[in-house]
Amino acid sequence: MTAGPDQAAIDELVGAARAGRPRAVARLISAVENDSPALRPLMAALAPYTGRAHVIGITGAPGVGKSTITGALVAAYRTREWRVGVLAIDPSSPFTGGALLGDRVRMQQHALDGEVFIRSMASRGHLGGLSVATPQALRVFDAAGCDVVLVETVGVGQSEVEIAANADSTLVLLAPGMGDGIQAAKAGVLEIGDVFVVNKADRDGVQSLIREIRTMIAMAERDPARWKPPITKTVAASGDGIDELVAEIDKHRAHAEGDGSWQQRRLHRAAAEVESLAMAYLRRRVRFHRGDELQDLALSVRDGKLDAYTAADQVLTSLREGARPTTQPSGS
Amino acid sequence: MTAGPDQAAIDELVGAARAGRPRAVARLISAVENDSPALRPLMAALAPYTGRAHVIGITGAPGVGKSTITGALVAAYRTREWRVGVLAIDPSSPFTGGALLGDRVRMQQHALDGEVFIRSMASRGHLGGLSVATPQALRVFDAAGCDVVLVETVGVGQSEVEIAANADSTLVLLAPGMGDGIQAAKAGVLEIGDVFVVNKADRDGVQSLIREIRTMIAMAERDPARWKPPITKTVAASGDGIDELVAEIDKHRAHAEGDGSWQQRRLHRAAAEVESLAMAYLRRRVRFHRGDELQDLALSVRDGKLDAYTAADQVLTSLREGARPTTQPSGS
Repeated sequence: MTAGPDQAAIDELVGAARAGRPRAVARLISAVENDSPALRPLMAALAPYTGRAHVIGITGAPGVGKSTITGALVAAYRTREWRVGVLAIDPSSPFTGGALLGDRVRMQQHALDGEVFIRSMASRGHLGGLSVATPQALRVFDAAGCDVVLVETVGVGQSEVEIAANADSTLVLLAPGMGDGIQAAKAGVLEIGDVFVVNKADRDGVQSLIREIRTMIAMAERDPARWKPPITKTVAASGDGIDELVAEIDKHRAHAEGDGSWQQRRLHRAAAEVESLAMAYLRRRVRFHRGDELQDLALSVRDGKLDAYTAADQVLTSLREGARPTTQPSGS
Repeated sequence: MTAGPDQAAIDELVGAARAGRPRAVARLISAVENDSPALRPLMAALAPYTGRAHVIGITGAPGVGKSTITGALVAAYRTREWRVGVLAIDPSSPFTGGALLGDRVRMQQHALDGEVFIRSMASRGHLGGLSVATPQALRVFDAAGCDVVLVETVGVGQSEVEIAANADSTLVLLAPGMGDGIQAAKAGVLEIGDVFVVNKADRDGVQSLIREIRTMIAMAERDPARWKPPITKTVAASGDGIDELVAEIDKHRAHAEGDGSWQQRRLHRAAAEVESLAMAYLRRRVRFHRGDELQDLALSVRDGKLDAYTAADQVLTSLREGARPTTQPSGS
């Protein structure tokens, strides 16, 4: 065993997080972000307390109003006295500034609410990137007693599908007059939507956008026994339609719990989480233990002396020879 | 050794592709797409003939005119009598239809030109996804004697940065009146742009968009010795500004070749290619050889009986015990 934080300190931190103390939650998310050496025992200690939170993914092109919808949903869930987590995922650099500042302004009304945990997470610097860090952060919110966790992507460039993979219910946001209908179809987001939200529904073009979405849902030819995604209209800035949206999300949960897809989806998520973590450690091993060899091979590939398949073979062969059967951090 | 296609057949196909026969090029790209068992010897045979093509990545939000710019660039390079490859990458499902059809219409004028190879590639079903398939497809175009290969993403949801990683020169397209300036910054695309293209420059708002881009380039605080990305104006639909754009791309190449960044970037690409391939084979091993175990572990993780880190450890341990030191397809 490596020397790590003692069990008493871990128990204390986990206890404080479970009691909903914001600083403890923040420290745990930081441990995820920094890939702290204490992360393994911490996640092991948190595991028994996970599985309760309803994770809601919020996807959509920039400008459709994701942050505003998120803020409105926080307010709606707070009227139920639910504990709410918000995870804003910024796949670009951690210091782009504008986007996150914008979110913070919209979230200001909840900033002093001790039952609302708001955290943004950037993709850089994590072991395995967001595919590893996101589920761990969600587990922290979950163990901290959140009834619902809203996951929102900030900015473009991130796979919406990847975010949806972490959610129990995925909202796909669109807005009239942005050419989003057809664009959304290209990215395959229609396939991941559990609830479609036409935001800015006070603008022209709402009906034609709804028709377009309806047509595309019909084209997807889903199994009739499966959940048929509803289309809800909102004006998030004024709160119009938010109660109806919340009701549709509730219905989706009830339906998914009823037909078994809720637990099935969570099983897929857990498998993806374990696989991502295993792959992240393998990638680290390739980079840190076979880094020089990789550079030499890359030089040969670049110069046409070797093909990439033969080079990959060599990496795998020497990885196996130097393999260590553990994911323990190795001083790197 | 597994039984594969004989060397004579491989040599013939590679020879036909090098001679620029479209059917041979198409067959090789299909081999990449289908992860054909013949792919390894084929890529080995192609390797010595790669490294010549100038790979130009074309990125930008939906609606800025990526396909139109691509078509205009094909026409421009054909006036030089260059052999041109076009790789349209569709990160969504292979059968969304609309987007690719749109491209084909715009590409129609080149469809009968034997010196233009146009191919679209979807992300599904490849070993390792597009991060493995894209560089292999580029190598096919390259070995087939293309002087330039244009790589364009279709639709949203794909990491623009990932596409840029495959390019010698990356064009970042923006257009006035789409709110793209600020949105682009969020995704970090400003950091990957070698040439900025303000398309639809006959619309209102061009000057303010250019100012915005200029400010952001200045904020990025690049090394003064490094290439300073120019901003070019185009109206791709009418061909305005395309000659200037081509000239800027030429300048970028000359600069990059001069300061060593061209070869350095290609080295990074080759390293990423080898690593992606190695990781793809490791992932396949995890899925196919440890699939049942992964499902059992995922069940425990879902139900809070195990944390994901301990589960990942177990996968790695048993992977090592059952490891085979080769990337050869194992009948799966």
